Amino acid sequence: MTSSDTAHTVATDHYAAVTELHTAPLWRFLGDVLPTEPRPAAVAHRWRYADLRPHLLHFLGALGLDEAERRVLMLINPGMTDPPATTTSLYAGLQIIGPRETAQAHRHASHAFRFVIEGSGAATTVNGERVPMSPGDLLLTPGGHWHDHEHTGDEPMIWLDALDYPLVNALDASYFELFGQRSQPHTVPDDLSSRQYVHGLLTPAWGPPPPGPSSPVGRYPWAETRRAFDAIADDAAGSAAEGVLLEYRNPVTGGPVLPTMSCRVTRLRPGFTGVPVRRTSSSVLYVVSGDGTAEIGSTVLDWTDHDVVAIPPWQPVRLRNTGDRDAYLFGYTNEPVLRALDLYREEEC
Amino acid sequence: MTSSDTAHTVATDHYAAVTELHTAPLWRFLGDVLPTEPRPAAVAHRWRYADLRPHLLHFLGALGLDEAERRVLMLINPGMTDPPATTTSLYAGLQIIGPRETAQAHRHASHAFRFVIEGSGAATTVNGERVPMSPGDLLLTPGGHWHDHEHTGDEPMIWLDALDYPLVNALDASYFELFGQRSQPHTVPDDLSSRQYVHGLLTPAWGPPPPGPSSPVGRYPWAETRRAFDAIADDAAGSAAEGVLLEYRNPVTGGPVLPTMSCRVTRLRPGFTGVPVRRTSSSVLYVVSGDGTAEIGSTVLDWTDHDVVAIPPWQPVRLRNTGDRDAYLFGYTNEPVLRALDLYREEEC
Amino acid sequence: MTSSDTAHTVATDHYAAVTELHTAPLWRFLGDVLPTEPRPAAVAHRWRYADLRPHLLHFLGALGLDEAERRVLMLINPGMTDPPATTTSLYAGLQIIGPRETAQAHRHASHAFRFVIEGSGAATTVNGERVPMSPGDLLLTPGGHWHDHEHTGDEPMIWLDALDYPLVNALDASYFELFGQRSQPHTVPDDLSSRQYVHGLLTPAWGPPPPGPSSPVGRYPWAETRRAFDAIADDAAGSAAEGVLLEYRNPVTGGPVLPTMSCRVTRLRPGFTGVPVRRTSSSVLYVVSGDGTAEIGSTVLDWTDHDVVAIPPWQPVRLRNTGDRDAYLFGYTNEPVLRALDLYREEEC
Amino acid sequence: MTSSDTAHTVATDHYAAVTELHTAPLWRFLGDVLPTEPRPAAVAHRWRYADLRPHLLHFLGALGLDEAERRVLMLINPGMTDPPATTTSLYAGLQIIGPRETAQAHRHASHAFRFVIEGSGAATTVNGERVPMSPGDLLLTPGGHWHDHEHTGDEPMIWLDALDYPLVNALDASYFELFGQRSQPHTVPDDLSSRQYVHGLLTPAWGPPPPGPSSPVGRYPWAETRRAFDAIADDAAGSAAEGVLLEYRNPVTGGPVLPTMSCRVTRLRPGFTGVPVRRTSSSVLYVVSGDGTAEIGSTVLDWTDHDVVAIPPWQPVRLRNTGDRDAYLFGYTNEPVLRALDLYREEEC
Repeated sequence: MTSSDTAHTVATDHYAAVTELHTAPLWRFLGDVLPTEPRPAAVAHRWRYADLRPHLLHFLGALGLDEAERRVLMLINPGMTDPPATTTSLYAGLQIIGPRETAQAHRHASHAFRFVIEGSGAATTVNGERVPMSPGDLLLTPGGHWHDHEHTGDEPMIWLDALDYPLVNALDASYFELFGQRSQPHTVPDDLSSRQYVHGLLTPAWGPPPPGPSSPVGRYPWAETRRAFDAIADDAAGSAAEGVLLEYRNPVTGGPVLPTMSCRVTRLRPGFTGVPVRRTSSSVLYVVSGDGTAEIGSTVLDWTDHDVVAIPPWQPVRLRNTGDRDAYLFGYTNEPVLRALDLYREEEC
Repeated sequence: MTSSDTAHTVATDHYAAVTELHTAPLWRFLGDVLPTEPRPAAVAHRWRYADLRPHLLHFLGALGLDEAERRVLMLINPGMTDPPATTTSLYAGLQIIGPRETAQAHRHASHAFRFVIEGSGAATTVNGERVPMSPGDLLLTPGGHWHDHEHTGDEPMIWLDALDYPLVNALDASYFELFGQRSQPHTVPDDLSSRQYVHGLLTPAWGPPPPGPSSPVGRYPWAETRRAFDAIADDAAGSAAEGVLLEYRNPVTGGPVLPTMSCRVTRLRPGFTGVPVRRTSSSVLYVVSGDGTAEIGSTVLDWTDHDVVAIPPWQPVRLRNTGDRDAYLFGYTNEPVLRALDLYREEEC
Repeated sequence: MTSSDTAHTVATDHYAAVTELHTAPLWRFLGDVLPTEPRPAAVAHRWRYADLRPHLLHFLGALGLDEAERRVLMLINPGMTDPPATTTSLYAGLQIIGPRETAQAHRHASHAFRFVIEGSGAATTVNGERVPMSPGDLLLTPGGHWHDHEHTGDEPMIWLDALDYPLVNALDASYFELFGQRSQPHTVPDDLSSRQYVHGLLTPAWGPPPPGPSSPVGRYPWAETRRAFDAIADDAAGSAAEGVLLEYRNPVTGGPVLPTMSCRVTRLRPGFTGVPVRRTSSSVLYVVSGDGTAEIGSTVLDWTDHDVVAIPPWQPVRLRNTGDRDAYLFGYTNEPVLRALDLYREEEC
Repeated sequence: MTSSDTAHTVATDHYAAVTELHTAPLWRFLGDVLPTEPRPAAVAHRWRYADLRPHLLHFLGALGLDEAERRVLMLINPGMTDPPATTTSLYAGLQIIGPRETAQAHRHASHAFRFVIEGSGAATTVNGERVPMSPGDLLLTPGGHWHDHEHTGDEPMIWLDALDYPLVNALDASYFELFGQRSQPHTVPDDLSSRQYVHGLLTPAWGPPPPGPSSPVGRYPWAETRRAFDAIADDAAGSAAEGVLLEYRNPVTGGPVLPTMSCRVTRLRPGFTGVPVRRTSSSVLYVVSGDGTAEIGSTVLDWTDHDVVAIPPWQPVRLRNTGDRDAYLFGYTNEPVLRALDLYREEEC
């Protein structure tokens, strides 16, 4: 055995020994733990609503809510199947509920919201307040809020479910509880929080301010969103990357509606071509209406009404409206998380 | 001369000597400088619009705006004539402007706002943005913002002017500048800030957030205020003292519209009788419409449309709607100042 | 009577009539209520400690604390005698207490602090915590905190008292209460708050954070102040206007120690000549030790150990150390008030 | 084939089809994505310094820093080997550097700090400021700060490295850059930030406040930590769970030193037995000195000088000092992350 061999053996022994002691040599892992750039497992992906809707209708017929708790197709990023997520730290799913169904009351650590796609007549009850649901409405259920759904209409209702559970689970902060009764009693006048904040600039001044970082507003109705765009018309400069981009706000703080997810909606006029931008945040887009493309890195995804697009972090993103209608894109992002942790960066590409 | 006399003389000499040295014995002033309770010079007072309107119309005819800079009747509290103020730290005045008049552009340290009483066709330009004025509209001109008025309508316009100049002057922080031209050029689409924030819960997400503590919204239209009350209907508990009390908000922070003045509006149903409350803040009420009384300490003041009421600090205040119409009261208060300085207290009486 | 006379009479009548109605024409007062620049009543003034100390000693002999509540010579600005103040919104006084005396427990809305000038053996009890007093120590009594003084040493103690009562009274927010017993019981280990925060960067993490905007620290000892300057030596750039200027902090927020008064201390090396600056804030300087001048507008005031200087708002101020010792200047300012209200401005002159 | 079989087949087909479409049925994953309780992969673990020190010394001899970038043994939780982490969202490693070595300058998105274990004579340069290192010192390198190490002493130096890279990578927000030169030039007087903030309650008041959420202090020296404990002696109540627990602070905000990691140190008197508490945050303990145990769920780990303990979320933790010396435990936790996202919960067990 040469001395070189010996050195090698000794070294090997040390490497084995430190592994036994539940340690590892950083110099062999440095590029993995401190990569030069984000290396998201998530990839750019678009789910076509036209593909998924028939399956939702199938499961509506095939599976009762007593069996399913929630009848939802999770949108699983091709790069993030285990654990399943839609993009980094974010989840999206499509939920369907049928006439006369109820989805039982529960609560969980994850912050969540719903964005209604089609149908009418359903309602979500959040901490005792029944909130109606119409297409384009945004409904919040911040972490720890009891929520259940009921449907008194005549046609199926479908909505987008969004949660931050990938992040909550990465932080091992989850909990989940059943309410005990299938549906909550209604202890507050229907839709009161939305009505009290309908004019977000003129809000209740009695009692202590709502606690916590989440918005106290149960519903942000689409009718108001349309009013907002109509009032602005073409007079605002908007964002070079994303057009006339409006953010849903917590009226108590002026901040995002949830501490982990910022919700936004933009209008892109026909012909709009955005400046490409990349960000350390991830996001999900839902097409309220319109036709266009999202160029995400080297991937070009076309989209139309009700499609969903997952955007990974740090990929340059360019949006185009290729149709002849105004396009309305709803989106949500984990930007508030990145900002709170001083990890947010963005740059034009 | 007895020794007692001598002692007295010596003591007197010391008192005279320390006075010469620009000092004073605290023990002779303690109750004055640290009173056991607030002792406002301001008294409760109500100005009847019916009394003042004819004089406004008189001065409209008698005095050109080239002579007057602003044609305003200051509402001077009977207890605060020199320097003149409406109540502690607050000022209110009634301004009138005639068809084809302009009031020249200036700015000042004082934060200010206007609340429109009657007329139509006038506009205020604030930092290059022309903002239309209709009855019930609230228009902001935060400290340091250039502002001028113009009137292209056919009838006189009258509005309530509110400023914090008594406080600014008590702090010796004033400045006042003329713009140089009589009217500002219009550099922003008309009323854009109001339109961008029309749905206060869904606001611009491009560019950096507006700086400073003041609201970026030029106008809070009365039509939106009415929408807010209509949406709430009778479903909100409201304040036992002040009914369904809504606060105008800075959408960027969720805080008051100006750092020195919080603006509010309440609706009192017929028969409403408030719980009496006293506060270390002072306030001014303006009656948008309705009939009632304000019991302020031992003073009972009745009020009707367009009257103005000054409320001194620490007096118990009880509001009643004695008419058969809903009463809408607009009010502003220096509560943000008291809160910022940890001097705010309130109690039911 | 000519028509011109008539017009004049009518106008006069209207002016008389509106005065009767407790209003006034703004156009006759505009320059007074919205002055082009701050017009402080306060003037620059210096009180010589050598002048005042003999009088303090006189009153120590001549007046018992049972008569005086507090034995203090108020420093009254020559321009602000009624109501009395030291400069805009601020008050300073020199308090003396003799061996075996106690000053009875009271509390008030005004925020207050003490800065010790000479003597040892006295203590202030604040909300049940006895805090010792040595020259150069800063002791806080935020608004609403019970406080009393006792003296178990052998020589007279003299300190600077500072309060914001001119502002509190301008806002009509005062209250004053006696504790009921002459001295508070000691319910907390002596000086505990100071000891818990002795290393301001490493502070208690149990229990809820102290409430309110005021610092929870009872005493900022001079020994620590000296340590701070010694550690910095000559390595810090400091302020061109004020040298190595350190601010006493509320460790909970990083902000000023009191919501109405920021406390600071600076060291000026021999030969230091500051850049002149003016500010909308007012301030009071107390000379811990050293010799120099303060040029305030066109007034030049020399100062030496223990002198006090009042600085009005908006006057250019230039500081010089004209001696051959390091000069240590303690100062306090209402800058937090101006900043909270968006009224703070400063400029080099 | 029976109709039941057919149904089964059809269902299967739908499940296959939706899988093809990159979706999944939530009802089959609900317990995994919304677990009823945190299910951390991390386990309670203790690394004995006595085991690891010989290997560090071996690698010091066997491996040059030109090969290793950083010579660190990562402490890999037995339950979190891929990707490697010490506990949920946190990393700890032991770094060794020899006389006359330098570790080259780099920066990264991850927030990091060092806590010195043994040796003297090394220094870290952070953004141009050289900061000396002694046992017990805490040194910060917030995300994006350039840092390199040098060693001019005669004996090896060992310290604990802490980073938040598991969280940064879970968020895909990483970047890593080399400075370009092996060592940074020294552009700031040595250790200035620590010296300017040595008395954390009395800090620089010139220039704009340091930006961002991270503390501007390069070093929190152990000598100051000892002073803090000595000043408190036995007069503070402390935490029932963790004794006299002090938190290192950002003096600008009063908050944690880094947005992702709070640093703390506690003293446990001999015989101390803590109340067991569980939290959704995770943490790492480093034993500065002392002997005791940590009961974490059903695991009891004994610890002595320089050992490191990983604590997973939501396990009840009980600390005991079983020796006859005071025990000093340094610890860090991701509690600021959980609080920012409204996911923090704690309860006594």
